[in-house]
Amino acid sequence: MKKVLVIHGPNLNLLGKREPQIYGKTTLAQINRALENLAKKKKAKLTIRQSNLEGEIVSLIGESKNKYDGLLINPAGYTHTSVAIRDAILASGILTVEVHLSNIYSREEFRQKSLISPVAKGAVLGFGPGSYNLGLAALLDLID
Amino acid sequence: MKKVLVIHGPNLNLLGKREPQIYGKTTLAQINRALENLAKKKKAKLTIRQSNLEGEIVSLIGESKNKYDGLLINPAGYTHTSVAIRDAILASGILTVEVHLSNIYSREEFRQKSLISPVAKGAVLGFGPGSYNLGLAALLDLID
Amino acid sequence: MKKVLVIHGPNLNLLGKREPQIYGKTTLAQINRALENLAKKKKAKLTIRQSNLEGEIVSLIGESKNKYDGLLINPAGYTHTSVAIRDAILASGILTVEVHLSNIYSREEFRQKSLISPVAKGAVLGFGPGSYNLGLAALLDLID
Amino acid sequence: MKKVLVIHGPNLNLLGKREPQIYGKTTLAQINRALENLAKKKKAKLTIRQSNLEGEIVSLIGESKNKYDGLLINPAGYTHTSVAIRDAILASGILTVEVHLSNIYSREEFRQKSLISPVAKGAVLGFGPGSYNLGLAALLDLID
Amino acid sequence: MKKVLVIHGPNLNLLGKREPQIYGKTTLAQINRALENLAKKKKAKLTIRQSNLEGEIVSLIGESKNKYDGLLINPAGYTHTSVAIRDAILASGILTVEVHLSNIYSREEFRQKSLISPVAKGAVLGFGPGSYNLGLAALLDLID
Amino acid sequence: MKKVLVIHGPNLNLLGKREPQIYGKTTLAQINRALENLAKKKKAKLTIRQSNLEGEIVSLIGESKNKYDGLLINPAGYTHTSVAIRDAILASGILTVEVHLSNIYSREEFRQKSLISPVAKGAVLGFGPGSYNLGLAALLDLID
Amino acid sequence: MKKVLVIHGPNLNLLGKREPQIYGKTTLAQINRALENLAKKKKAKLTIRQSNLEGEIVSLIGESKNKYDGLLINPAGYTHTSVAIRDAILASGILTVEVHLSNIYSREEFRQKSLISPVAKGAVLGFGPGSYNLGLAALLDLID
Amino acid sequence: MKKVLVIHGPNLNLLGKREPQIYGKTTLAQINRALENLAKKKKAKLTIRQSNLEGEIVSLIGESKNKYDGLLINPAGYTHTSVAIRDAILASGILTVEVHLSNIYSREEFRQKSLISPVAKGAVLGFGPGSYNLGLAALLDLID
Amino acid sequence: MKKVLVIHGPNLNLLGKREPQIYGKTTLAQINRALENLAKKKKAKLTIRQSNLEGEIVSLIGESKNKYDGLLINPAGYTHTSVAIRDAILASGILTVEVHLSNIYSREEFRQKSLISPVAKGAVLGFGPGSYNLGLAALLDLID
Amino acid sequence: MKKVLVIHGPNLNLLGKREPQIYGKTTLAQINRALENLAKKKKAKLTIRQSNLEGEIVSLIGESKNKYDGLLINPAGYTHTSVAIRDAILASGILTVEVHLSNIYSREEFRQKSLISPVAKGAVLGFGPGSYNLGLAALLDLID
Amino acid sequence: MKKVLVIHGPNLNLLGKREPQIYGKTTLAQINRALENLAKKKKAKLTIRQSNLEGEIVSLIGESKNKYDGLLINPAGYTHTSVAIRDAILASGILTVEVHLSNIYSREEFRQKSLISPVAKGAVLGFGPGSYNLGLAALLDLID
Amino acid sequence: MKKVLVIHGPNLNLLGKREPQIYGKTTLAQINRALENLAKKKKAKLTIRQSNLEGEIVSLIGESKNKYDGLLINPAGYTHTSVAIRDAILASGILTVEVHLSNIYSREEFRQKSLISPVAKGAVLGFGPGSYNLGLAALLDLID
Repeated sequence: MKKVLVIHGPNLNLLGKREPQIYGKTTLAQINRALENLAKKKKAKLTIRQSNLEGEIVSLIGESKNKYDGLLINPAGYTHTSVAIRDAILASGILTVEVHLSNIYSREEFRQKSLISPVAKGAVLGFGPGSYNLGLAALLDLID
Repeated sequence: MKKVLVIHGPNLNLLGKREPQIYGKTTLAQINRALENLAKKKKAKLTIRQSNLEGEIVSLIGESKNKYDGLLINPAGYTHTSVAIRDAILASGILTVEVHLSNIYSREEFRQKSLISPVAKGAVLGFGPGSYNLGLAALLDLID
Repeated sequence: MKKVLVIHGPNLNLLGKREPQIYGKTTLAQINRALENLAKKKKAKLTIRQSNLEGEIVSLIGESKNKYDGLLINPAGYTHTSVAIRDAILASGILTVEVHLSNIYSREEFRQKSLISPVAKGAVLGFGPGSYNLGLAALLDLID
Repeated sequence: MKKVLVIHGPNLNLLGKREPQIYGKTTLAQINRALENLAKKKKAKLTIRQSNLEGEIVSLIGESKNKYDGLLINPAGYTHTSVAIRDAILASGILTVEVHLSNIYSREEFRQKSLISPVAKGAVLGFGPGSYNLGLAALLDLID
Repeated sequence: MKKVLVIHGPNLNLLGKREPQIYGKTTLAQINRALENLAKKKKAKLTIRQSNLEGEIVSLIGESKNKYDGLLINPAGYTHTSVAIRDAILASGILTVEVHLSNIYSREEFRQKSLISPVAKGAVLGFGPGSYNLGLAALLDLID
Repeated sequence: MKKVLVIHGPNLNLLGKREPQIYGKTTLAQINRALENLAKKKKAKLTIRQSNLEGEIVSLIGESKNKYDGLLINPAGYTHTSVAIRDAILASGILTVEVHLSNIYSREEFRQKSLISPVAKGAVLGFGPGSYNLGLAALLDLID
Repeated sequence: MKKVLVIHGPNLNLLGKREPQIYGKTTLAQINRALENLAKKKKAKLTIRQSNLEGEIVSLIGESKNKYDGLLINPAGYTHTSVAIRDAILASGILTVEVHLSNIYSREEFRQKSLISPVAKGAVLGFGPGSYNLGLAALLDLID
Repeated sequence: MKKVLVIHGPNLNLLGKREPQIYGKTTLAQINRALENLAKKKKAKLTIRQSNLEGEIVSLIGESKNKYDGLLINPAGYTHTSVAIRDAILASGILTVEVHLSNIYSREEFRQKSLISPVAKGAVLGFGPGSYNLGLAALLDLID
Repeated sequence: MKKVLVIHGPNLNLLGKREPQIYGKTTLAQINRALENLAKKKKAKLTIRQSNLEGEIVSLIGESKNKYDGLLINPAGYTHTSVAIRDAILASGILTVEVHLSNIYSREEFRQKSLISPVAKGAVLGFGPGSYNLGLAALLDLID
Repeated sequence: MKKVLVIHGPNLNLLGKREPQIYGKTTLAQINRALENLAKKKKAKLTIRQSNLEGEIVSLIGESKNKYDGLLINPAGYTHTSVAIRDAILASGILTVEVHLSNIYSREEFRQKSLISPVAKGAVLGFGPGSYNLGLAALLDLID
Repeated sequence: MKKVLVIHGPNLNLLGKREPQIYGKTTLAQINRALENLAKKKKAKLTIRQSNLEGEIVSLIGESKNKYDGLLINPAGYTHTSVAIRDAILASGILTVEVHLSNIYSREEFRQKSLISPVAKGAVLGFGPGSYNLGLAALLDLID
Repeated sequence: MKKVLVIHGPNLNLLGKREPQIYGKTTLAQINRALENLAKKKKAKLTIRQSNLEGEIVSLIGESKNKYDGLLINPAGYTHTSVAIRDAILASGILTVEVHLSNIYSREEFRQKSLISPVAKGAVLGFGPGSYNLGLAALLDLID
């Protein structure tokens, strides 16, 4: 059975309430449920965490090495500023897929640079909550 | 039945022969077959074109408006330089998903700017031929 | 009788359908008719071409030298990216007026640099279809 | 009867004497006469001012709101440096056409940025004194 | 017998007429004849193409792989803007020498960046028509 | 009664000891007392927090939505680097006033860019501890 | 009794009419009345000037040295372009507070650089007409 | 007898009072007296003006053409921002020498770009009031 | 006896496992032991902390003022992004030496800017675990 | 008989030993011999110098004016940094061809700017020792 | 008696021959003679050196401290590239005046940055050989 | 016995006299003595050179290959400008440690880029003369 760590970055706990004109009304709980459903179908086991703390995310990834086969991460606001999360992915060597609800490359200038992309295998962005499902499907395929 | 236009940009006719250490050995014909299979399953009809000519791609998109429900495009080398293709997508108003075989944001500086992304609904990148299937699935979901 | 080559760049065949909130509802055919009317009044003969292909535009200009007295061009999406069209104007030495439907200097950053302007005699921009008529009038005056 | 304010920016009082190899030998008085002629033909009334003082130009525009239907301005040296004139156009909300004798986009780097263009409806540049006439014609059309 | 593909980029069909103060009066036909002479002497067979179309050049290179031992290319205006031609050279893996009539590094800023150079083995520039002969000689030596 | 959340960012617990030549000798406790006094006078209730942890500040703001009428924040060192705090303010939609003890626009280059300013209603900076009182007064006025 | 010079920069005479969606409907006369009221309460005497002329503002500040205890200035459009006003503040050595009706750091790029901030003691921005009152209060406190 | 126009830019009327640690205690009157003395010795006649108004300086230079043999100018704060003064010097074609009290190239970044230098024959900077005398001597030599 | 605070930044708990081709196989425990040995020899007492949390590091430094004579810090991923840690060092005024295992100036562009260096007394970089020992030796010398 | 000065810049004395994976194993002596052979065949006389000293190279070129018909130079490390060598070529007015063993435009960013190219007639780069022979052949042709 | 070291930088030995359309026909010997004459009149003793070697100039300045009262230097091509000469002036602490024959701020971009200016007291530029005399006069005045 | 080449770059012969407020009063002779003492203790033999000539330093390094086990270099002013010294280190392949007396990353912008760092194994900076001793100790450890 494939084991996957899912990390939701800062502010994603607010989903459904946050700028609904951009992200829609789906809550994080609903997204997680959809992910669990897909995982069940594909014989995978998910561990899901949300954290607003950059360092906590670093720790989660640092300890992921021998415990998970892959990492699905939406780094949210840390996408553009966190060298530490990038280093954690590098250090753990874990297979990583990056997802974003919105198309970050069509937003403000400072959101158009991802420090995470160069260390991720692939990325899915702009499909709202759908980005997560596509990302998980892609990750599970890669693990095979 | 959903109708989708699939456009493969310049050099993609060479797939399978081209820098296999980056893109793998899958040929364009194999990718197209996989797309057709997925389309059949999802009750969609594909029109697939490959072109090395920027202007031909512009024309294909310009005429797509009332003929297709969505556009799946890998603009390849024109991703970073074609304002004309961007304008064609804007002008036709067609729902667009951008795919890339490799993770363009982990390659050379000049490949890290997509002129197409800001006018696409979403993007899938880095999963090799898998990017196409994920992109088509996402596009068909969006059309619904 | 003055002979003028009129070139409409990529996507301009879509005019009237394209982003009407910016460009209005006039079609290319209507613009051409207005140009023909003005030409007739001013004793000029127009040859009008629309092309989505950068290289085709390069060829049209390259062959214009001894056939036309002036060039009226809306390079559209190639305005910002085509060194080849710029070189064609330089090489042919033809008297050139650049027109734009919208005011490119009030749009996105990447549209605010014209590679064509430095080799054109003058430019008219922002008056919608009216830009063409003003540009043709200016060009015919310059030819005198 | 349409009322138009015409503003000539700094140094334009020197026209005819100034760098004739670029601007030709026409004086400002001659340009004004040509503008008056065109206005008469088109049933318009012009108020013409030349000023070397940025703040005086700001005042002229600020008071233009209910007195004029449109503004024809050659901001000359203030084109590239005056946020205050830009703000005056914004604040007065007056319909504005920008003209330049030379093609500013083929000159020195610092002349290739216009702070005025983004708040003008359109621009005419590079046709020498002819730019004024074209600009006035375009402005009168827009007022209709 | 060595087989070499020679590609002349956009506007080079105008050679001899184009800005003679920079490029001299030699026509493309004369250059081709000189190349054929050199090839004959060195037991090589040339296939020579001129195209104004970026995509056509991409296609020519894409199909060159098993048909030619080397590519001699003057990308002209596409030197500075074509990621697609660069990708075609990479994809075909063909041994490439870049030539330019003028010294592009002593011209305008935007001509001082070649997208082709990093994928070419070597370059010859600034010797007018002589650049071609030197480039061909160098290419034939490299093929050995 | 108006309810306001006051957040002091990293290192502000050191106030009074920290670079006194720039910030003066007032301690955070004294600032808080002054804020409480002003709040009492203006019939407002304050909740005051200091945190060195970016993610903790993100959480505080994320939970503020229905609990407070406004946010008074001195983001200190996170002013220039935290997309996550900016997103938290956006997501919670809380009315925000930004304060700084020193005039950040007269200090080092990297301090002259605030990621928070574009999502704050207004800002007060450079008046030492006085910035807080002015900011709170302004915020309470805005809430009305 | 404290004496304060208040300077309103270019276009502020238009207040109330100008872009009301940004600045509200308060006129300059109303702002001045509010300032006078506050001054009376705080035992201060104001001298208020509005000017569209950069050089006139320079002169007012240059002569302010021994006549005033402080300067409250909204440099408006000259905020971003006037080295001369900055030098006048430096030369006169007068205690200065900068105010802005809107939050300039959330507007266009070119408005996000203030040449005046580095020579002002503090700044208040984004509170509409309220910025003036807060700024005057802060200035009078600083004078003490 | 040589006739020279001397222009002192904004704030120079404050000399002697202004930042004496940089410029020394000499007043403008003293500088003018020294210039007059030197002029008398060299059989030259000076016309000396100080102005804080950019447009007034533009006018002075615009009218200088046939009245003076040379211009000695310290553009002060307008050095870095005035295209209009630069254009006035170009338009009048007057022989110009630029002087600065301080060494502008050892001060803040924004002071290290002179818009005037490219149109001046030469420059003298950094010698305090001595810069004027050296500059006048140089100018008078050039006039010969 | 000298007291030194040693801080290991994010991901350093993974040492020995992380990118061994760059950092070698030494673990953090081994590095700490070596530091303790050196400290013992030099009559110093170490307090060693590792943290992935930026704010926790800020707190450790903020409280260090009267408890330690010096700080030895490897800020790892926060080197390039943390204004807050920089401010903490400034605020505490503690004597600081910065160490890095790898030579950050020979790595990616974004790693070549240290926000910490300007507030550290000195730095040692590129000697792997040896950087720590050299840094501690240097720090103890400086304390004397 | 044509006389040519050949200059080898810094470190070229190490050729054959230096980074052989880039430059091959040919020594400078072997290159010089090949150049002498070619010269003999073409009735030319070479003077060959290698120097690590920028100023010595400046002197050699400065004295070259009437002694040589052309200069063949590989400026090596001084290519990117020496204004003085550029000035020497300009001052001597000698006909110059620049050669490089490697294709500098496919190496590090800082090697992609040549200060020498703009003052050289042409350049040959990327053919290893072959660059010299091609360069000499081209230079001798130019001298004719 | 005042003692002054005069240093002429690279290529200045070629004066009179070098780009005469910019620098005129005066030779270095003539300039030196004029300097000696002025020195004699002003009771000063000159030591004059010309060198093409950056390091030699560094040495000359390094040894100048107690031997000379001032340094008159034309760093020529090293103006824009030599940190070492700048450091030598700083280290020796010698009073320095920089001169240039041409107005470097009206030439190519790369010549518009002087590394020497920030450590010189003042500069004279653009007066051809006259720059030296003015510079020496200024230096002798400063020494007093 | 380990053999080490020590190179002191330009101006370091002035140490002790040079900007003592930054570097202290230690002379180069004293530094060399300390290095010799350390070397003796560690069974190493030093060859020490100081040179102001970039090319001489290039030569010293170029010849170092088989004569030394390592290079300790303070490139001083050439740190930021010498591609030639960088190439010499690359070409010789010698193990290199870079030292600086001051912390170059806390000084002027142009000193914050080292061309040498990317080819050095490690660096020690900011400890005054102590940097040398730490650097030598590190180098000797690396040689082992």
